[in-house]
Amino acid sequence: MIEKASLFRKLHAGPRILVLPNAWDVASARIFEAAGFPAIATTSAGVANSLGFPDGQHVSRDEMLQVIRRIVQAVSVPVSADVEAGYGDPVGTAQALTDLGAAGFNLEDKVGDGAPSIADLAAQTKVIEAMRSKTDLVINARTDLFLLSDGDPATRVDRAIERLNAYRKAGADCLFAPGVRDVETIARLAQSVTGPLNILAVAGTPPAAELERLGVARVTIGSGAMRTTMALTQRIARELKEQGTFSFTESNMPSAEANQLFR
Amino acid sequence: MIEKASLFRKLHAGPRILVLPNAWDVASARIFEAAGFPAIATTSAGVANSLGFPDGQHVSRDEMLQVIRRIVQAVSVPVSADVEAGYGDPVGTAQALTDLGAAGFNLEDKVGDGAPSIADLAAQTKVIEAMRSKTDLVINARTDLFLLSDGDPATRVDRAIERLNAYRKAGADCLFAPGVRDVETIARLAQSVTGPLNILAVAGTPPAAELERLGVARVTIGSGAMRTTMALTQRIARELKEQGTFSFTESNMPSAEANQLFR
Repeated sequence: MIEKASLFRKLHAGPRILVLPNAWDVASARIFEAAGFPAIATTSAGVANSLGFPDGQHVSRDEMLQVIRRIVQAVSVPVSADVEAGYGDPVGTAQALTDLGAAGFNLEDKVGDGAPSIADLAAQTKVIEAMRSKTDLVINARTDLFLLSDGDPATRVDRAIERLNAYRKAGADCLFAPGVRDVETIARLAQSVTGPLNILAVAGTPPAAELERLGVARVTIGSGAMRTTMALTQRIARELKEQGTFSFTESNMPSAEANQLFR
Repeated sequence: MIEKASLFRKLHAGPRILVLPNAWDVASARIFEAAGFPAIATTSAGVANSLGFPDGQHVSRDEMLQVIRRIVQAVSVPVSADVEAGYGDPVGTAQALTDLGAAGFNLEDKVGDGAPSIADLAAQTKVIEAMRSKTDLVINARTDLFLLSDGDPATRVDRAIERLNAYRKAGADCLFAPGVRDVETIARLAQSVTGPLNILAVAGTPPAAELERLGVARVTIGSGAMRTTMALTQRIARELKEQGTFSFTESNMPSAEANQLFR
């Protein structure tokens, strides 16, 4: 499996941006693989919702790892696992991901599940150093400064750059700044961080080609695709409940094609 | 939980048709419940695909029951479980479903997972009798004659009626004939079976209001909604891969709304 990690790491070296879609179950993972992506990620929020939990470490590590294991076993491309902040034992979680055959993982820098705050920088750096000493997987170190709207907005970008560069020095392979979508901030981050930059695509994010020109190495979609299917399920539910009609059956994947994904 | 089964059974007594949507994970189950359905079903094909298996008892009973248990625990409405042909131990499966709090279940009358054929009628009747003696859950006895295109088409409807009425006499609460969508056959089945009739909605099935006029007691959607979300995931994958754009983010369920479903 070290080969998978090595292959996955090379995808961050450019010159083309790595578009990495996030799966929430084996069906979505196989659909992304069949579409030709060279690697896939998982979405912790999507997996949690699929299992019946809100986002934010409400799901147990065992349950999250069970889904990640299923996905790793079902696809042949490298899989990067979203394991939130490591479920109270980030080094043990990294070891478990290595054992189950993942190629990489994300690590958030927020602490506290109920009202999260940003982890102490020195402490988070030590966690990444400890992970680096235990695993060859691709570490995607994330700062939650933007998602949590932490501290003074005027210094937030500077603080994010400081954090991401400290994570890089501690051994992270890729640096993740979700919650940023304006071109100027993305460009500044891409120019200032000392490793590959990962941007999260949300409504309003520039297309992958523009992100590539700005120097972004990797773009992921988080739970975006899962939540688009949830919105579709809601529309189907309303059609069934209010009209009692079945128009959604006109646009579904044929059973034979669906089943063929898993043979 | 016997109250749940009793409540669910009453929904089959008319005068309104029971529109029963089939979920494949907790997210879809909660979305259907939130839309106001008085009960929900599961789809074995949808659950299998979500876990990475083709339809047709390739998933283990334990894995299927784990998903059903999650759904039962996450919703307050009655849940009817799709457990295919009972995974080699239909009576034990019925007992397990009773223990985990399901309100009902489906039982197919096909045997053999690779090249399935129709079960011996006397044997299938005995299975239903044994289940009836062990559980108060709502038994939805299905004939696979239409889906398997079994035998002479000229006698298929008569044979289906014979089977479904034998299942009713053995203790089934509801009689399921998937694979039928023309109005004449649906009307004939509704008039000839001695218990509530369940029709599967596929492309071309008349709307629920017309099914109700024809005398149908219950309409389900099988894996239809799941496969519509799989087709959407495939379109998202292609957009990401071919255009590198994120238009799907414009129509997704907001994270706060998604997470609120599970609090």
